[in-house]
Amino acid sequence: MTVLTSRVIEFGDDLAISERNREPIMLEKTPGDSVHPFDRATKTTTIDGRLHGTASEDYWAFVGPFGGATGATLLRAMIEHPDRAGDPLTVTVNFCAPLARAEFQVNVRLLRANRSSQHWMAELAQEDNGVVAFATAVFATRRESWSHQQTAMPAAPLAGQIAPLPNAGIANWTQQYQFRFVEGTPDYNGGTRREIPASAFSKMWLSDATPRPVDFLSLLSMSDTFFARIFHVLGVIVPIGTVSLTTAFHADATDLAAEDTTTVLGVADANIFHKNYSDQIGQLWAPSGRLLATTTQVCYFKA
Amino acid sequence: MTVLTSRVIEFGDDLAISERNREPIMLEKTPGDSVHPFDRATKTTTIDGRLHGTASEDYWAFVGPFGGATGATLLRAMIEHPDRAGDPLTVTVNFCAPLARAEFQVNVRLLRANRSSQHWMAELAQEDNGVVAFATAVFATRRESWSHQQTAMPAAPLAGQIAPLPNAGIANWTQQYQFRFVEGTPDYNGGTRREIPASAFSKMWLSDATPRPVDFLSLLSMSDTFFARIFHVLGVIVPIGTVSLTTAFHADATDLAAEDTTTVLGVADANIFHKNYSDQIGQLWAPSGRLLATTTQVCYFKA
Repeated sequence: MTVLTSRVIEFGDDLAISERNREPIMLEKTPGDSVHPFDRATKTTTIDGRLHGTASEDYWAFVGPFGGATGATLLRAMIEHPDRAGDPLTVTVNFCAPLARAEFQVNVRLLRANRSSQHWMAELAQEDNGVVAFATAVFATRRESWSHQQTAMPAAPLAGQIAPLPNAGIANWTQQYQFRFVEGTPDYNGGTRREIPASAFSKMWLSDATPRPVDFLSLLSMSDTFFARIFHVLGVIVPIGTVSLTTAFHADATDLAAEDTTTVLGVADANIFHKNYSDQIGQLWAPSGRLLATTTQVCYFKA
Repeated sequence: MTVLTSRVIEFGDDLAISERNREPIMLEKTPGDSVHPFDRATKTTTIDGRLHGTASEDYWAFVGPFGGATGATLLRAMIEHPDRAGDPLTVTVNFCAPLARAEFQVNVRLLRANRSSQHWMAELAQEDNGVVAFATAVFATRRESWSHQQTAMPAAPLAGQIAPLPNAGIANWTQQYQFRFVEGTPDYNGGTRREIPASAFSKMWLSDATPRPVDFLSLLSMSDTFFARIFHVLGVIVPIGTVSLTTAFHADATDLAAEDTTTVLGVADANIFHKNYSDQIGQLWAPSGRLLATTTQVCYFKA
């Protein structure tokens, strides 16, 4: 599985940053640190009225931190804004360039507030690197209504019955999760493309490596944990990078607290690979059978 | 089908605007006008360096213009910007408040330009009404690559074999389209909710009422033409409003020109209705069997 470290994000004229970001790093282990790595990775601090953070080593991918952690950093900045009301309904994260191994600033803006909904935007920028990622989100105060789940959770054995994917040597970010595959177990070490494209579908139980109750932040991050669909289809690793990700939440904070789960069932698929870009569609389910989030993304690939 | 005029968007404290927008209007018919209504509706004009437009009567819904036309107006402003390079890959449109029957301004901003991709944002605002809608988009110069369509077009009889939905008396925007339903023909005139929720799935051939070759703008607009899933499921019309829509394009301008079609097959479904919000997923297919766009949205409902 060491090949997973070759997940490459290509951003054209940002190759200089990519090269710098590729230097090998050591994970800092702080014994007795009670803050969960995910909360440390997505935290920002207000200094002189501006939000500051640092690119996460714990969630390092190959040329920058894992996109899910970056997206969650942006969503966290919106959630923690004093003017925020309600729970996130839907979030779109656009990835513009690799986040350099350095400090960053987040600028949060409320574009519109209505009686029961709000529209937010957050931009993450670095000195000498410009806008690296930005997110827009709709928040709403959700009330009881007619409720109906049209789609049933896909069948799966219990998570405890499946061995997690071994993660020795894999990129840092994958070490922060446990992947227990039900279908579509990664099998792309051969280096030779399949002549007949395989299924793009996969199904896995997913949890933080250090258990953490699932919330909006982790659901957004988990939306980006599906290995690129093209790896499954071609059976080889090729350069890829998410350019835009949209996640809709189908549970509010009260619902999530009631689920009280550290594990979700994640299913993902793709419809098309064409002219360097593919789509990805996914769902995240609570073990109870409740649909927590749906997600789509557009992914660059070189093949 | 007159009930379709009761499609209501509720935006809390914007009810004053809603009331004003509900006044009956007459469509201006200009004989000999060679500009397609869709191009007229989505056009902006530069005055003193700012983009100006007017809320479209042709695409009027109930408390404002049809969201698809508003989204296309924002995308058009980005496409027509002199610094734009490449074709749109994915667009997210957030609807913040009803667009009042008045002029509006569009502010376009390039957030990041790379060698072969660009990240844009466009905001639509009105005097005394603030930000009404905004969109973010990724553009890219797409090149030949390995190409594979994982999903096949759903089976359907030829469009010409299906009678279009009668549109007398329906809201203006629906008169701008021809809907030829293959599955899930609207049947929600009874006024009584179904006791057992029906399928949320529908399949239809869709074209502009005045034929117009399908391009990025019309694909984005067509993404919002699916009648609310809750109408199909409950069998009645309830107040609804799209709050956020994301459409990914799977063809570039060259591909679309080669398709040269005025008609697409649109399929839509939903996974869940919960606490006033539902999702909607959709696909738009060329008659040749090529997947042109996929779309998701989050929709408010009151039921």
